[in-house]
Amino acid sequence: MNQNSELVIREATEADIPALLGLIRELAEYEKLTHILVATEEMYREALFGAKPVAEALIAFDAGKPVGYAIFFHNFSTFLGRAGLYLEDIYVRPETRGKGVGKKLFATVARIAKERNCGRYEWCVLKWNTPSIEFYDALGAESMDGWLMMRLEGDALAKVAQHA
Amino acid sequence: MNQNSELVIREATEADIPALLGLIRELAEYEKLTHILVATEEMYREALFGAKPVAEALIAFDAGKPVGYAIFFHNFSTFLGRAGLYLEDIYVRPETRGKGVGKKLFATVARIAKERNCGRYEWCVLKWNTPSIEFYDALGAESMDGWLMMRLEGDALAKVAQHA
Repeated sequence: MNQNSELVIREATEADIPALLGLIRELAEYEKLTHILVATEEMYREALFGAKPVAEALIAFDAGKPVGYAIFFHNFSTFLGRAGLYLEDIYVRPETRGKGVGKKLFATVARIAKERNCGRYEWCVLKWNTPSIEFYDALGAESMDGWLMMRLEGDALAKVAQHA
Repeated sequence: MNQNSELVIREATEADIPALLGLIRELAEYEKLTHILVATEEMYREALFGAKPVAEALIAFDAGKPVGYAIFFHNFSTFLGRAGLYLEDIYVRPETRGKGVGKKLFATVARIAKERNCGRYEWCVLKWNTPSIEFYDALGAESMDGWLMMRLEGDALAKVAQHA
């Protein structure tokens, strides 16, 4: 009965975009960030599979159904002098949790980082997301709590750009 | 007497690599991070000007002398569905501070972000670096203090990769 219930993780293709956007919407709901989710299928087509891709995606299937994804891109460390891998998002559907899908997705991105000789594997987590922080701690991740992330967008960004 | 004292900010070229590494060493000293600076000129040649560049650099000159730099790369926001610009490093020599070089470098990267239609301009700052945080606050930057950065490297990264 359960012959298709094997977990499959593979690179996403253009055909996976609708499934990917469905999962991203679920993540936005979990992170209470639906108000900033403005991306469309066309935008992912361009960003992931266009002339100049800026990110890569993995998608996880359980019994043939999409149950999770990871999106990542290359960053760069000036001090190491080489590229790293940055995990922008990772998500597993709530009904699929506890089966190791998240760990496998996370580890697959780590394997890609190793294969590409990246100096570091980095990501951010919401501070209130204790289950995720405990998951990462258990894997030996270091909390970079001496650092503060900052962001400029919209009008503030346009204003600063005028000072150039 | 002062005819060359105009500030010039331009894209770095391969010929600027020795000057760039000199400035990066000074930044590592300022940030008390010299123990993690392992990059060589050859590594910057590959990362900035190789077959597949992973980052870009601006360099600032005052009266013909290199006095500061900025290194940045493209990141990606899943929720926006498009690329942003991430400022990995910005540095101005202490003896050149107070002349607006840092602000001009920072604004030049912001202008590039606008020109490329980036959704966001982001960077990280050490929490003890109050002068920098005040500088960014004054420009209208948002502190992403709900987020915690995490990192895997070395043996811990290799171990996680084996679970893929």
